[in-house]
Amino acid sequence: MASTRIREAKERDCGDILRMIRELAEFEKLSHQVKISEEALRADGFGENPSFHCLVAEVIPTPGELQGPRVVGFGLYYFIYSTWKGRNIYLEDIYVMPQYRGQGIGTKIIKKVAEVALHKGCSQFRLAVLDWNKKAMDLYKSLGAQDLTELEGWHSFRFEEAAMRQLAE
Amino acid sequence: MASTRIREAKERDCGDILRMIRELAEFEKLSHQVKISEEALRADGFGENPSFHCLVAEVIPTPGELQGPRVVGFGLYYFIYSTWKGRNIYLEDIYVMPQYRGQGIGTKIIKKVAEVALHKGCSQFRLAVLDWNKKAMDLYKSLGAQDLTELEGWHSFRFEEAAMRQLAE
Repeated sequence: MASTRIREAKERDCGDILRMIRELAEFEKLSHQVKISEEALRADGFGENPSFHCLVAEVIPTPGELQGPRVVGFGLYYFIYSTWKGRNIYLEDIYVMPQYRGQGIGTKIIKKVAEVALHKGCSQFRLAVLDWNKKAMDLYKSLGAQDLTELEGWHSFRFEEAAMRQLAE
Repeated sequence: MASTRIREAKERDCGDILRMIRELAEFEKLSHQVKISEEALRADGFGENPSFHCLVAEVIPTPGELQGPRVVGFGLYYFIYSTWKGRNIYLEDIYVMPQYRGQGIGTKIIKKVAEVALHKGCSQFRLAVLDWNKKAMDLYKSLGAQDLTELEGWHSFRFEEAAMRQLAE
């Protein structure tokens, strides 16, 4: 089995990241909601005050393989602020391409996020998962995460642009 | 009825904000989770790269009243990043003191957040609410918010420090 490494994304990875953002949204059956562009990802994530940070999972070619390293997964996160605990990390997206699943790559990404969070003085990190995605839920739980919707009853609400425009009138 | 205004919080409001963070956590029956200090709020929200922004609701004294303006509510938010829509706002906390409820102050805070979000080019803002807090849920829905946990099945997960330390080993 080829080996995988997790590294910080570079600006040149934005094409791969956008492709995987779309694949993930398709898997989540919500791809009609994707409006982001590669240019926006470049500008928002790789300027002076980046709005997000990104890790990519890369398969290292075995010696003799003609192909270069392939980006096969990603974890995109940013810093949030808990009024209870201070600065934390939110893992907005985590994704591994279907043909590379079952090799522990998702776990490697989660571990790296935990490392970054601790290094940055965060005492927790959060993420969201769809209730029918039992495989992901089971993985996160097996790694020590708590389901706060189940345990405490948190529901996620969203105001979309039309609602905001009406409110701001 | 005294009039209320919503304004940006200043560093000197941190004492009031911390008091209300604690009141809100108590109302949510989760106050044992509050570890933040006034000093941390000052440092994290009012330095050069603030980790959060805060609005406060202030009751304006009627002419002749001896008391100055009173801070009776707050909304604490920060910028997040949707891989579908770009930069967005997350309203981490919204709170109005019990004796000032029913006067539309919460709605005023929500409206101000919508204004800020649109002004900053965001196409949505999110927040979380506890499922037994029907009054808040009904308010947000009446203002146009969607319950994504109900509609799409999103569950909120959290890795706490002990889990992160084990992952990072």
